[in-house]
Amino acid sequence: MSVITVLGAGFMGAAVTFPLAAVGHEVRLWGTWLDDPLLEACRRGPHPRLRLPLPPAVRLFAAGELEPALAGADALFFGISSEGFVPVLERLLPCPAFRPDLPIFSLTKGFIPWRGAALRASECAEAMHAERFPGRPLRWASIGGPVKAVELAQGVPTASVYALADRSLESFLPSFRTPFYRVHAGSDLVGLELCAILKNAYAILLGICDGRFGNAEGRLYDNLKAFLLAKALEEMARIIEAAGGQARTAFDLPGAGDLYVTAQSGRNRRYGERVGRGEDPATAYERMCAGGEIAEGYPAVRLGSQYLKPRYPGWEERLPVFSTLHRVLAGGSPCGAELDSLVLRYP
Amino acid sequence: MSVITVLGAGFMGAAVTFPLAAVGHEVRLWGTWLDDPLLEACRRGPHPRLRLPLPPAVRLFAAGELEPALAGADALFFGISSEGFVPVLERLLPCPAFRPDLPIFSLTKGFIPWRGAALRASECAEAMHAERFPGRPLRWASIGGPVKAVELAQGVPTASVYALADRSLESFLPSFRTPFYRVHAGSDLVGLELCAILKNAYAILLGICDGRFGNAEGRLYDNLKAFLLAKALEEMARIIEAAGGQARTAFDLPGAGDLYVTAQSGRNRRYGERVGRGEDPATAYERMCAGGEIAEGYPAVRLGSQYLKPRYPGWEERLPVFSTLHRVLAGGSPCGAELDSLVLRYP
Repeated sequence: MSVITVLGAGFMGAAVTFPLAAVGHEVRLWGTWLDDPLLEACRRGPHPRLRLPLPPAVRLFAAGELEPALAGADALFFGISSEGFVPVLERLLPCPAFRPDLPIFSLTKGFIPWRGAALRASECAEAMHAERFPGRPLRWASIGGPVKAVELAQGVPTASVYALADRSLESFLPSFRTPFYRVHAGSDLVGLELCAILKNAYAILLGICDGRFGNAEGRLYDNLKAFLLAKALEEMARIIEAAGGQARTAFDLPGAGDLYVTAQSGRNRRYGERVGRGEDPATAYERMCAGGEIAEGYPAVRLGSQYLKPRYPGWEERLPVFSTLHRVLAGGSPCGAELDSLVLRYP
Repeated sequence: MSVITVLGAGFMGAAVTFPLAAVGHEVRLWGTWLDDPLLEACRRGPHPRLRLPLPPAVRLFAAGELEPALAGADALFFGISSEGFVPVLERLLPCPAFRPDLPIFSLTKGFIPWRGAALRASECAEAMHAERFPGRPLRWASIGGPVKAVELAQGVPTASVYALADRSLESFLPSFRTPFYRVHAGSDLVGLELCAILKNAYAILLGICDGRFGNAEGRLYDNLKAFLLAKALEEMARIIEAAGGQARTAFDLPGAGDLYVTAQSGRNRRYGERVGRGEDPATAYERMCAGGEIAEGYPAVRLGSQYLKPRYPGWEERLPVFSTLHRVLAGGSPCGAELDSLVLRYP
């Protein structure tokens, strides 16, 4: 068994300690400077977001205790939001207890704004790591697939895909498995990371659908939602191909599976419902942030257009669903009219 | 505008009269010998299943009035269940008002048992047509995609795919469109028909999941359902390829879209919930049939194994989700244990 340090005590960071502890790893959970209240609560009772007590063997480390949390670790899980991604790496990489070849399994889902560009998580980590440790390879894997944190913690049967930038990390995977947590090795880092980002964005649109049309006059709008889901998968596949990944990742667990689970419930879906009911997109996002709920799909849509511009010329016309989402969230276009006409406008 | 005769006054047959009448076609709705009570009700008020009055211009024809219903028709819509498929064709083909080149747009979803084999709808229709009209080609299209009948009737934005066995039928499609009903032409008849059948089967499994685990102890099992959805799409793609169709149909509107909408609500999902709650699979099916609700996924699983046997050697091992479904519905295997272990067993 290994020493595994999980960075980030939010939903996913806390949830992944459950299978890791169940297997018998020595699990340490480090909270960022924003997580101190979460850790305080965990010392006394259930994790405030998961509403479950953490496994007793998990040791908690406050924001100021990064060095002891890392000392002697065999691998890291990076359970940090896209907003915290760069700030946490900026503390992690120079930390004396950090070794440049320490394996990192990343749970981050979102484009990372870095020096004016929008990057995938591993692209950004690689650039930052190369600056600090030139010539030393980054040992990185990104985790995707349909995993609601609370269900992972509850022991609901769950399948996950670990896309390995470094194949040597595959030897770790069998030791992350439990009877309820299945870990598949994957090789399409580009596709998996893009799915993890984009499904949050597209799930917002399904939420908008429910918020806008609700169960109005006994209509469910499932036909429209199913159209949006299928076309979202098609567009994700196209974006992945344009970025050099494999289209089929969009149709497997990281794409179809994760979009389904994200559209069923969760923050991005709830955010979409608020927009669908008429709230201003920016205001709704800020209000949810103030309540501790970050709907990562909202920045993903804005950064997404920046990511697509150099990689997918003509994306506005060639990705009708994504550009509808962009017009609604970033351009203030009324969602009802946009959604009503999308089925007919789709080429 | 054309004269369009819709055969079958159940959910889909009745629903498709809404866009057809909205465009201004002369629409005739013929009910089978089982539909007479439905037509009687429609003459006095709303369609009993759709709970909406039919468009006033739709003319109703009882079971005995097949000949006048067909006289002068430019095209047929075939809104017949898989059980009624052969009996209705056996009356249609010899009818004096039937022309062998009359275009048929089929809404049937299910394997057709015919002379000991399990066939796709167009395979069976072609064989029967060729016997009656040797040398005369059948002008056939099968309709798929995510279309809940009641939403189509309500005017919810809906997209549908018409897979054309005869490309000349494409000229009809623009005249079926309304501002809320988008009709795409498709060419993968094999893939579309298999999706239309198999999504009913796989949707049952998602229903079983909810019936078995419900919201037990606050757990939703969305992670497991998302896994099942993604793997169902993968298996549908493999089955389609083995049968000579195009895998990508499984990831578009006919597969991903229709599986999503079918798993959200409807008869197959409700049937799955009953099995998940512990009802015997055969008994639950019969009880629903007695109430006028045919869960077509149940015979699709049994006939599916027959269809797969010659076309997909080793399907039991190579299609773990479908074979789980088959063990549960046809073999009496307990669904809880099967579902709990499926994530780990999946290769």
